[in-house]
Amino acid sequence: MDFSSFLTSLGTSFVVFLILMFLFAWLSRRPGNHVIYYPNRILRGLDAYEGIRLTRNPFTWIKEAVSSTEADVIRDSGVDAAVYFVFLSTALAILVLSGVILLPVLLPVAYTAENKIDANETTSKGAFNELDKLSMAHIAEKSHRLWAFLAATYWVSFVTYYLLWRAYRHVSNVRAEALMSPEVKNEQFAVLVRDIPAVNEGQTINEQVDSYFKAIYPDTYYKSMVITDNKVANKIYKELEGYRKKLARAEAVYAQSKGTANPEGMRPTAKTGFMGLMGKKVDAIEYYGEKIRELVPKLEAEQKIALKDKQQPAAVIFFNNRVTAAAAAQCLHDTMVDKWTVMDAPEARQLLWTNLAKNFYARLIRQYLVYFIVFLTIFFYMIPIGLISALTTLDNLKKLLPFLKPLLDQSTIRTVLGAYLPQIALLVFLALLPSFLLFLSKAEGIPSLSHAERAASGKYFYFSVLNVFIGVTVGHTLFDSLKTIEKDPNTVFDVLAASLPGSATFFLTFVALKFFVGYGLELSRLVPLIIFHLKKKYLCKTEDEVREAWAPGDLKYGTRFPNDMLILTIVLCYSVIAPIILLFGVLYFGLGWLLLRNQVLKVYVPSYESYGRMWPHMYNRIMAALILYQATMLGYFGVKQFVYTVFLAPLLILSLLFVYICTMKYYRFFESTALDVSCRELKETPNMEGVLRSYIARSLSAEKAADDAHFVEDLAHVSRPGSAV
Amino acid sequence: MDFSSFLTSLGTSFVVFLILMFLFAWLSRRPGNHVIYYPNRILRGLDAYEGIRLTRNPFTWIKEAVSSTEADVIRDSGVDAAVYFVFLSTALAILVLSGVILLPVLLPVAYTAENKIDANETTSKGAFNELDKLSMAHIAEKSHRLWAFLAATYWVSFVTYYLLWRAYRHVSNVRAEALMSPEVKNEQFAVLVRDIPAVNEGQTINEQVDSYFKAIYPDTYYKSMVITDNKVANKIYKELEGYRKKLARAEAVYAQSKGTANPEGMRPTAKTGFMGLMGKKVDAIEYYGEKIRELVPKLEAEQKIALKDKQQPAAVIFFNNRVTAAAAAQCLHDTMVDKWTVMDAPEARQLLWTNLAKNFYARLIRQYLVYFIVFLTIFFYMIPIGLISALTTLDNLKKLLPFLKPLLDQSTIRTVLGAYLPQIALLVFLALLPSFLLFLSKAEGIPSLSHAERAASGKYFYFSVLNVFIGVTVGHTLFDSLKTIEKDPNTVFDVLAASLPGSATFFLTFVALKFFVGYGLELSRLVPLIIFHLKKKYLCKTEDEVREAWAPGDLKYGTRFPNDMLILTIVLCYSVIAPIILLFGVLYFGLGWLLLRNQVLKVYVPSYESYGRMWPHMYNRIMAALILYQATMLGYFGVKQFVYTVFLAPLLILSLLFVYICTMKYYRFFESTALDVSCRELKETPNMEGVLRSYIARSLSAEKAADDAHFVEDLAHVSRPGSAV
Repeated sequence: MDFSSFLTSLGTSFVVFLILMFLFAWLSRRPGNHVIYYPNRILRGLDAYEGIRLTRNPFTWIKEAVSSTEADVIRDSGVDAAVYFVFLSTALAILVLSGVILLPVLLPVAYTAENKIDANETTSKGAFNELDKLSMAHIAEKSHRLWAFLAATYWVSFVTYYLLWRAYRHVSNVRAEALMSPEVKNEQFAVLVRDIPAVNEGQTINEQVDSYFKAIYPDTYYKSMVITDNKVANKIYKELEGYRKKLARAEAVYAQSKGTANPEGMRPTAKTGFMGLMGKKVDAIEYYGEKIRELVPKLEAEQKIALKDKQQPAAVIFFNNRVTAAAAAQCLHDTMVDKWTVMDAPEARQLLWTNLAKNFYARLIRQYLVYFIVFLTIFFYMIPIGLISALTTLDNLKKLLPFLKPLLDQSTIRTVLGAYLPQIALLVFLALLPSFLLFLSKAEGIPSLSHAERAASGKYFYFSVLNVFIGVTVGHTLFDSLKTIEKDPNTVFDVLAASLPGSATFFLTFVALKFFVGYGLELSRLVPLIIFHLKKKYLCKTEDEVREAWAPGDLKYGTRFPNDMLILTIVLCYSVIAPIILLFGVLYFGLGWLLLRNQVLKVYVPSYESYGRMWPHMYNRIMAALILYQATMLGYFGVKQFVYTVFLAPLLILSLLFVYICTMKYYRFFESTALDVSCRELKETPNMEGVLRSYIARSLSAEKAADDAHFVEDLAHVSRPGSAV
Repeated sequence: MDFSSFLTSLGTSFVVFLILMFLFAWLSRRPGNHVIYYPNRILRGLDAYEGIRLTRNPFTWIKEAVSSTEADVIRDSGVDAAVYFVFLSTALAILVLSGVILLPVLLPVAYTAENKIDANETTSKGAFNELDKLSMAHIAEKSHRLWAFLAATYWVSFVTYYLLWRAYRHVSNVRAEALMSPEVKNEQFAVLVRDIPAVNEGQTINEQVDSYFKAIYPDTYYKSMVITDNKVANKIYKELEGYRKKLARAEAVYAQSKGTANPEGMRPTAKTGFMGLMGKKVDAIEYYGEKIRELVPKLEAEQKIALKDKQQPAAVIFFNNRVTAAAAAQCLHDTMVDKWTVMDAPEARQLLWTNLAKNFYARLIRQYLVYFIVFLTIFFYMIPIGLISALTTLDNLKKLLPFLKPLLDQSTIRTVLGAYLPQIALLVFLALLPSFLLFLSKAEGIPSLSHAERAASGKYFYFSVLNVFIGVTVGHTLFDSLKTIEKDPNTVFDVLAASLPGSATFFLTFVALKFFVGYGLELSRLVPLIIFHLKKKYLCKTEDEVREAWAPGDLKYGTRFPNDMLILTIVLCYSVIAPIILLFGVLYFGLGWLLLRNQVLKVYVPSYESYGRMWPHMYNRIMAALILYQATMLGYFGVKQFVYTVFLAPLLILSLLFVYICTMKYYRFFESTALDVSCRELKETPNMEGVLRSYIARSLSAEKAADDAHFVEDLAHVSRPGSAV
């Protein structure tokens, strides 16, 4: 890629971004689009503009985003979103503080070096001189100028340590603050018990759980809710809900057809066969009504059966104060770890029901099996990605697909394709993965959605770093320097380290594409907007259907965070080799912070709250990136034959020490709730029955009146309130 | 060493053992010696023979030892002793079960092999053929007979897995049983709090602790006892106790002197100067009385000062039930791990007071510093031991100390010295170490004696295995084969693996010496007996002094267990190479079990109770020995150029897996008390004031009446009994 195609790529990206931003300013003002641009506010019962001064200025949203506080974010989108912003601002601060020193120092040092550069040492083979002169590749071997780069490596590391230390403490405080809130939060009164041993003769699991915990917590134990196998009930419930929706839809269609022309209206019909496409034609309203009347008693019968005969060896148990629940989740209850395992209860809305009853060893085996599959996935994807990044250079395309030659020879097409093709191939490739990884993480037997997303995000991070970053770098090198290696296999390591600056331009355009086009789409929400309008026009008949069509979803940390981390890893690794990348990194995280602040305050709605448990994972990944960066630099200084390269080794030890100390000091509070935090006073005495009821699966509590006390009795067979024995 | 000197060594050892056993049978019957042979029984208020049928048979003790149950051991010497017996019997069972298969199978296989043995491959250079023929060294390279040895390696490993799994479960049950005992045990109601943060203005540490824990445990918190700096008080108290003893002694001397000849008696005198050896001569009784009268008010004043002004940032806090104490010890209290660290309180008698107030980071740094010093110790001792084991062969002695030549040329002396000299040198050498390691372990900042002894025992184990076992093996080899290695440095590894059978005879005699002479001395208690009688005759004047002279002490796990482990490691490592060593191993652990059973029931008195916390350490060491054995075998089969050596690799993975699973399943209960265990009912309501009082340092509670309620108030400044707020 030459310099002009690099600039073209930057330019087009920027133009696309500008267009999308103006589109956003224009579209978001039309009231019909408010449900797309302000769903978070609307769902919280606010007006789209409530509390916001409406001006003609299309950049008001920027002012709002900048002036919003962390407390606003927590109020509107929860602690997890606030923690995500701590991550964004920490990454931004690392890059800004690094850049403030590195750019004014390293660029002149590199540019004024005597140009002894070897043409083989750059990807562009001399055609991309303008940027190459600004990079470490331009420094001669053994030059004393390398001291400046060595010092820069230290500076970046110390900036990272300092900011991460502060961020960890800050997140810890945010989490503590949220956990000591005087509001009653149901999950703080509950713990999840798994691996309940086989019951004695003539005892239900429920009775066993009650007698076990009442002996240990005579004064604070409230009741238990044994997990049941709801597969059948869920199926019936789903069917029932489906018919209800269809009935509402049919009624809406009928009401609409009663126009002035046809006051009687036309009763809609339905087919009874496969997927409503075949079979006998019947009156839809009557047919669905009939079906619903059939299913309700069936569901009720199944609910009774599930509660009585389908108890599983897991339960959620409730305490009438927060301290006991927090303490219970941290304590060993049975002498064996594989029985009566107790842990903090996740929120009811994020429970992965089918995982709760999986036993200790099943979980263990599944975990290692999943790790193995992920390992295979990472290493088998390596091959296709390597092939793609090797094939999708223009010269290779021409060779492989000669019929494209006339097209590729046109200079504009050539420039644009040359700039984007490899990157687009990569992005499409990556889009396939996240749901597979989430599926795998759920299969591990993890009990909560937030935990599963964290696990998936970790896997995705390793995938990205190994395959995109290292894979692309090595792929380029292997392809470019295959002959060199063929002649002398011992040079593999040298070629590897030397290839880093070679891939710099690839990653510069990768980052630019990511933030200009990616963030442009994010802000303008073009795709959801179009889908919503199409659905509304052609599909939705009832109010509920419209609501479903604009439901905003959450931030999707599972993919968003690993993508950010990939960028951060790339930028860190190149920060000293090609400091110019810091500018792009700053733009990425700065724009990201700004845009997502808007999205978090107005668009996305969190689907769970884990009180910042994501943070230690973020911290670990940033440190992993930093250590990769330090190791890379160690290798690269070696390639430059710098005698004092050894001075970089303490940095690696320092990083490991820093991880050890941070994790030791801060991590445990993210694993479990500190008692000092949970002993704060509550605004009101919790309504324990309400707490318990909130944990009942929808399919079991459906068709019950809200005040059906008998039902709760049913659920918790032994049901004297927890008082002194 | 030739075969006859080996037999002589065995023979003399056995004769010494027999003599000592008969001495024991004879001496232990004389009532004057009962305090040496039955102190445990006497201290528990029993008669020496109570419950034992006295016969003339000198082997009655064997019958008693064999018929005693685990419950007897727990009653007489606590859970730790019982766990030590689980270790002994597990080791014994491993060796017996291994021997039952290995001896009848491997010995014939080895003996009937065609003797292609290379003279260089044995230490004895052909002179020790009789034993060499029974070892794996006798098998030719690549022989198919090696399959039998490979299978034997598997058999020993599986026997170990099976028995360790059972033992871990058994010890876990014993621990649970002891912890759920209905007796009130003070330490079960207490937890130790360290790293108390700096107090607010105008608050004492005591008030701060009380308000902090009352907020978290409003109903179950009783009181706290803040740790004070007792250095001065301890010094005064020690001085006071010294004068009391001297006074009692002077009075006893005076009373004795009032014989019929001199009804007035002679008042003893004392000198007031340095150590009572110089200075003015005064009347002893008056002088000591005066001193005591001076010191008592001084101590009382210091006690007040200590309680008020010398509070340290650590405390023992008390709960009025066991469950809360057990739960509190497992929970995170502050959001930071380095503040308000809570752990199970050790028994009062084993608290290491000066360590309690050390802060989190001081402990951490001290720990790593100690590890580093231990590392140095292990590797610097390597040199002297290597030298000693190389020098103390007879030929070398003759060369180095030629004046000994005439003596060494006498055949009897030559045989005995040749058999024992290197071993004695080694044993003496090892005697210097344990107290140094215990000192180091205490310097880590560990809060309890039992934990410090565990830590010291671990260090001693690594020392023994690295220096005695590996050091001696390599030392011999290096000395013997220095020339071979000089010629071709690549053979180092081959020489190392091949040298194992070479050191077999050394270790055979080492084990024999250990058990015959060591256990003979242990049973007969000759040394303590002689010291006691000397002291009683020439030094002791008062009843208390006599009692001190026969105080039996405890089992000294800190050195006893690592010594046993060294034997077990040696026997395991040679079990397949020279299966005959299994006989010696069985004798060692069999005799050990028998003799120590006697000692534990009648002699030793435990100085602490840790409820079997020693076990996981024992388990880990046994597994470390097994893994060393497996790795050694892998190397040795390699030396034998056996093509199927690779079949041993899964064994190593299996061992690591076994350690992982066992530790995961069982270990946590040894770290902390399971709540299910601590919620069992008590025989009586605990007297909380008594519990608290038991934790007061002697130097602070001395000179206080037992019912001085005001004193406890002083101690726990805030002292409303813990009831609902």
